Order: sequence, then C-alpha cells, then structure tokens
Amino acid sequence: MSSNKPSLPKGTRDFTPSEMVKRNFIYDTIKTVFKKYGYAEIQTPSMENLQTLTGKYGDEGDKLIFKILNSGEFLNEPKKKGYDFAAENNSNKLVSLISEKALRYDLTVPFARFVVMHQNELSFPFKRFQIQPVWRADRPQKGRYREFYQCDADVVGSESLLNEAEFVLIYTEALKALGLKDFTIKLNNRKILSGIAEIIGKPALIVDMTVAIDKLDKIGMDGVSKELLEKGFTEADIERLKPVILLQGSNLDKLRQLKEVLKATEVGLKGIEEIEEVISYVSKLTGSAPEDIQHLGIDITLARGLNYYTGCIFEVATNEVAMGSIGGGGRYDDLTGMFGLKDLTGVGVSFGADRIYDVLEELNLFPASTVQGTKVLISNFDKEAENYALPILAQLRNAGIAAELYPTSAKLKKQMAYADAKNIPYVILIGSEEISANMVTVKNMLTGEQEKVALSAIVDKLG
Amino acid sequence: MSSNKPSLPKGTRDFTPSEMVKRNFIYDTIKTVFKKYGYAEIQTPSMENLQTLTGKYGDEGDKLIFKILNSGEFLNEPKKKGYDFAAENNSNKLVSLISEKALRYDLTVPFARFVVMHQNELSFPFKRFQIQPVWRADRPQKGRYREFYQCDADVVGSESLLNEAEFVLIYTEALKALGLKDFTIKLNNRKILSGIAEIIGKPALIVDMTVAIDKLDKIGMDGVSKELLEKGFTEADIERLKPVILLQGSNLDKLRQLKEVLKATEVGLKGIEEIEEVISYVSKLTGSAPEDIQHLGIDITLARGLNYYTGCIFEVATNEVAMGSIGGGGRYDDLTGMFGLKDLTGVGVSFGADRIYDVLEELNLFPASTVQGTKVLISNFDKEAENYALPILAQLRNAGIAAELYPTSAKLKKQMAYADAKNIPYVILIGSEEISANMVTVKNMLTGEQEKVALSAIVDKLG
Repeated sequence: MSSNKPSLPKGTRDFTPSEMVKRNFIYDTIKTVFKKYGYAEIQTPSMENLQTLTGKYGDEGDKLIFKILNSGEFLNEPKKKGYDFAAENNSNKLVSLISEKALRYDLTVPFARFVVMHQNELSFPFKRFQIQPVWRADRPQKGRYREFYQCDADVVGSESLLNEAEFVLIYTEALKALGLKDFTIKLNNRKILSGIAEIIGKPALIVDMTVAIDKLDKIGMDGVSKELLEKGFTEADIERLKPVILLQGSNLDKLRQLKEVLKATEVGLKGIEEIEEVISYVSKLTGSAPEDIQHLGIDITLARGLNYYTGCIFEVATNEVAMGSIGGGGRYDDLTGMFGLKDLTGVGVSFGADRIYDVLEELNLFPASTVQGTKVLISNFDKEAENYALPILAQLRNAGIAAELYPTSAKLKKQMAYADAKNIPYVILIGSEEISANMVTVKNMLTGEQEKVALSAIVDKLG
Repeated sequence: MSSNKPSLPKGTRDFTPSEMVKRNFIYDTIKTVFKKYGYAEIQTPSMENLQTLTGKYGDEGDKLIFKILNSGEFLNEPKKKGYDFAAENNSNKLVSLISEKALRYDLTVPFARFVVMHQNELSFPFKRFQIQPVWRADRPQKGRYREFYQCDADVVGSESLLNEAEFVLIYTEALKALGLKDFTIKLNNRKILSGIAEIIGKPALIVDMTVAIDKLDKIGMDGVSKELLEKGFTEADIERLKPVILLQGSNLDKLRQLKEVLKATEVGLKGIEEIEEVISYVSKLTGSAPEDIQHLGIDITLARGLNYYTGCIFEVATNEVAMGSIGGGGRYDDLTGMFGLKDLTGVGVSFGADRIYDVLEELNLFPASTVQGTKVLISNFDKEAENYALPILAQLRNAGIAAELYPTSAKLKKQMAYADAKNIPYVILIGSEEISANMVTVKNMLTGEQEKVALSAIVDKLG
C-alpha cells in the first residue's frame, strides 16, 4: 500500500455535496423538460469497441479517444502478429493490437450504434435523451475537462420540422426554468449555406466558406475576408457574400432579404422554407406571432463544425455573461449510415451542462440548496437527551423530513458548526428543562430565533 | 468509416427507455431514503491514477482493474526506460510504463481518496452517498457485468453505533419502498469472530476460520468441518465451534448463548455489546421491543470477504427469490490510512442495484411505467388536424403533462402502434367532426374507451 498523498488525474474532478446539489438541479430541470416533450432516457456503456469509435471524429478526434488496455497478457497479440517493437516508431500501429475498447467520446456515435443494434425493438420516430459523461484526452484548461457530462436529446425517423420547432421550445423552457432571462437560440440551415456557395459559383468551397464566416464574431468582416481570399474566393465573391453575412433586421426581414439573394438556388430556397416552417410551428405552439417570437434569432454565419448536419442547425448563447455557446445541435440525414442503417434522418440538440453551471454560478441563480439536504439536526448532549431524541428523530423521518441526530455527545459549538457546514436550517436543542416539560427548543439557524415547541407539534412546525 | 455490424464490448449493456425507468425507480427510491437520513451525494471521476487503485484489492483484484493507455506516443516512455520488448515476457512490467490511469473498481477506495483530499473542507462526521458505475475485467456471466452500478452510503468520523442502527433502518425502509416484503438484514461483528478464534486458541487462523464458516449456507456443516480440518483445526476445535456456528433461536437467544460461550474473551464480549447497542438503538427508533424487531437477524457465520472490516458487518438477503446477497457493508477503522490519514473510523453499506433489479423483475414489483413517460399522444391525420392540435399540445405541456403530437400525417394503425410501444395511456383523436364541434376524442389505451371532450376540459380530464 502506498501512503503517498493522493491526487486526481488531470482534467478530472470530484463533486462535493454542494456541487452535486447544483449539478442535479441542472440535470433534473433539463430532464423534466425533455420528458414533457416525449423524450425517454437511455444509457449506453462507458466503453465501446474501439472500432465503433475510430474514424468518426476525424484524425484529431481519434487521437483524443481514451483507449483501454486489454486485460491479461496483452503483449501476446502483438508478439503473435510479429509486431517489431525495436523497428516500429509509431505507437498508433500498436494500439489496435493491445487495445480493443475505448471510452466514449460523445453521446452521438453511441446513440447511432444503439439505434442500429436495437432497430427491431424500437418504435420510430424514436425520441431519446441521454445524460452521461464523455471522455476526451484534450489538454485541460479553464472550463475544459477530460471527463465532462453531455445532455443530449435526439429524435430519429421523423423528417417533420415540428421536431426542430420543439427543440426551440425545449431550449427556451429549460433555460428559463434554470433562471436565465436573456439568451438567444441561433438558427440557421445548412441548405442556406449551400445555396450561398452555389450563387457565388463556388459550391466546392462550401466547407472553407462556412468555416470562415463562422468566425465573424471573433475576427470581424476583415478577418473573414482575408481568410476567404486565402481559400480561393475573389474580391467579387466577397462583395456578393457581404450583404448575406452582414444581414440585419428582424428574423422576418432577414428571410425576406435572403429570399431575394437566393432566388436562383433551389437548395437555398428550400433552406429558407424550412426555417419558415420552424417559425410557423413555434408561432402556433406559443401563440406568438412570427415576428414576436422570443429568444430565437436567425444567424446566417452559424455553421457548426460537424459535417454530418444537413438541415437546420442551432446554437445557444447567453447574453448575460461572456461565455461560449451553452448548447447546439441540428438535423442530420445519415447518422446511422456509418453502421449500415441508411436513410434514417434525425435531429438533436445538446446542453452544455458544465458551462451552464458556470453561468448560473456567476449570475447567482442556483436556488437555496438547503431544501435538498438535511432539514433538522437534533443536538446530543448526553445519554438522557439522546434517548429523548430518538423517537423525535423517527417521528420526523416518518413524516418525510430529512433529519439527523448528532451521533455522539459533543460541545454545542461543534454541533452548531456541523449544522452550519451542512446548511441545516433547523437545530433541535434538548436539555433537562425541555425533557421535564415534554418539549424541545427549535433554533432557526438563518434568523437565530429560538422557540419552545411541544413534542406533539414538532412535525407541524418543521414539516 | 466501417460499416460493420456494430456490437458492444462483452459484459457491458445498453439500457432502453423501459429499463431506465425501472433503474431510476431503484436509484431514486434508495436516494430518497439516504437523504432522509442525512446522507449527501458526491461523485468522483471514472478514472483514478493507477497508483491510487493498485494494491488495494489484492493481486486478483489488481488484475481486474481496467487500465487506460497513455495518450500520444505511449511507447516513448518504455523505450526511454530501456524496456526490452524482445526479452520481457510479462505484460505486467510494461503496464506502469504505458498506463498511468485506470477505471475505478469500486466506490470505496475513491471515497477514501476523496475524504483525504478534501479533509479540510469537510465537516465530520461526513455522511455521503454515491451512485455511480464501476468497472471490473471479470469473466462476464449471468448477473455479472464488466460495468455495473454501486449504490454506497458511508459515514466517516463517527464511532457511534447509532450509525449502524440507522443503516439497518435505511435497508429496511428502502427495501420496503421497493416493494420487498420478506428480507433479512444479517448482522454480525468481526470482534465476535475474533473472540471465537481466541477461545479456540487459534487466533492466527481467524481468516481461514471465517472463510470456512462463511460457506455454511453453500456447503453445510460437513463441508465446513472438512475445510477447517484442512486448514489446521482439530476435531476438538470443530466440536467447540459447532454450537456457535449452528446457534439457534431468536436474536436475543443467540446473544445469551454467545455471551456464555465467549465469556472469557474481552474482544468477543465487546462484539456482543456492540450488537446489543445496535439493537437497542433500532428498538428506540422503531418503537419495537428488541425481541420484536423485524428483518434483522444475527448470523454468526457471516464473515464478508473484505479484510478492512473491524466491527459490525451486514449482509442483506431476500427470502422471496433465490438470489445472492442484495447488499452488504460494515464498520472499518482505518480506510483512509492507505492515503496517509490515520484513525478515521467509518461504517458503510452498499445496495446491489443490478441484483435488486432482477429480484423486482422476477416478483413483478416495478410500478406501472407509464406514469413516467409520455401521457398523451395527439394523432395527426392531415394539416388541418395538425393546426388544430398544436395549441392543444401547448396547453397540455403548459399544465406539466408530458405530451406528443405524432410528427406527420400517418395511418391510424401506425400511430396507435407508436402509442402502444411507448406505453402512452391516452390518445387524442382529431377528425373533421371534432374540429367543427370544438372537441377532441380521448381514447383510453388501457380500457379502449373513447370519450368526446371539449377543448376547455382536456387538461382537467388528462391532468
């Protein structure tokens, strides 16, 4: 046994009771909304076969996947295969010989695998949510961890844009329930981006174009122009792009302008039509006129990195504190194709729980945590008081009240410090006076007030 | 991208929506009870430094720990250290050079590490619960998985036997809330086992003795005798052991007999005294006389494998189906010593969630799952009905009712099959007749009954 000072792997965290109460507040709030919209929870294993994950996240992503060493004599396999340790210089080649499992990198690929494996037992459209940790061997930094939670909801097997509209409502409802007031659900459509590339006459450069305009927030129009020139766009192209990128006005204004710009491109008009339909659904579901819908903003510069998106894309930003996106998602037409199940369309969103945590902390929006911990501590000064306390303790718990008896006789100061540290709002004090009068003294730890309460009235008082 | 048929690593599982509802029922029930007794939730990372885990579970345990391969050029380190791949035949020697992290094997060692690392911010006694998966590279078999959940509660920094008594109540209350009726919380004390070894004059053989008598259930007294003889006990020793092992009668009868047998051993009497105090606490907390306490049974053959236990030990068995123990735990006097924090006593219990799942399934004790999923499906036959449905959908959700609109027009049969598959109890049918009368038809999917309901009365009807 080592008696070294213990430590945690870098990029990982413990969560203390007060942090867990806050984290659970976020998860529970989001879960409640997911369920209200018909999404059901699933879980997948932390480890997947390495070949399920490899090749799904690009070369950079593959490097960040945590691989699990095979158990037992893991060197037998490379030896059998004639792997030449002395000659080989590339660890990568060895990986598949000594590792066949890895920790999941996101919830999307495991979900696609789940759908393919369970396709015969599932009823489509299949609406699932999943809140589980994922692992990435990223360089840890402020706000970026090697183990963190994702909160995803996806529906597969339905092309209806009602789903997109409901995700707008799910974001709105969940973020409001978390206490946020000023946030924007940015909406765009990959087809509009395709249309733009088409009218400029550079459809092959769509990826370079979207990557560049996605940076408008960070590097401004000059920066975007510079990058576009480097990627093979001309000054004339950029002049035609500018009015689209710098689109101003309300959502409906933007759509009107876009329709004019994109009138010659079928795919572009289809993208506009899809956004209009989403807005129409949101309008009917909220009872707000299309021009009055809150928290929804069309943003043509929004691209989202992932190449599997094919229709509407979302990204959510809070306007109350400086913070990257706190959520995002979109429609994909062929997620399960990688596992041999073709043509299953889907759309999904994700909440960035760790960032939402930081936002709520900064805005002081977490509700008072006391409600969720112990409500009453009964003090313990001697055996007589303890015996007097035990039935009271049972009575409180039988009424569903979280209660503790300090487990040994100790100084009042120590017991009060314990109550303080655990944020326990009430302490019951029992001395000889209380015992002889069949009462207790209840101390409110917030106000400091003390009050004598008869045994028979304790549950009413503290319930 | 591979288009191979996907599969899961052996010993791991997906959980579908209906399984998750059942699993959450178990977790939530146990959590509610933990909280009522003042236990607060923590979480620790899935991965720990390899040296935190190594040497804590014995040689066999070490082999079952899943190690994570270092990221990047993991061969650099063994090469630098001059590891000779051609000459070395033992994978073990290489592990520490290419792996520095591992998946947690249980929740106990991470908890000890947590307490030591956070000792200055924690208030003692520290009562925590933790419900997270653990990983073991065991050979998978029926009921044994490589990833499974543990549900642990522990209190450290309190030697009061009130804690042990409360664990008896926590088990009782949680198992009853899960619907179990006939179960036994077996109670023993390591000090009694020490006392028995002492009076036989074989204190050095205590481990062999406890291992043997622990098997009484499985191999009977003859089997136990045989094993004891092999381990160096004499026929005379066994004759003296027999009455202790085969102790009959009520808890109080057993204690009386034990006191007589163990009167010459201080440690043995201390063990009896501790059990008596636990029974006394349970009696005062439940209002039952010591001889009337339900679900608690003294079992002198109970040993529990783990060597760190020093006082009371628990094991829980259901008597309604054949199943191994569904929970266990005990008092340990030096859990954090392995990380340099000495003399911190603690006691803890664990619920075997996966086995409890199997028991509830077999006894058909899971509550109707419908309550937790979508409550109402609104059918969708054409655009007109859809437009009529959207405000109804919003109305239901605003009232907190989980509701879905079938996202596209489809045949009734298909929509009904969807409602059936998701266990949705009510379907709202909307045709031209309903629309013109400002009504809907509500179909109860359980009884098949249909009823016309006015728009204004839907929430009342379905809420």
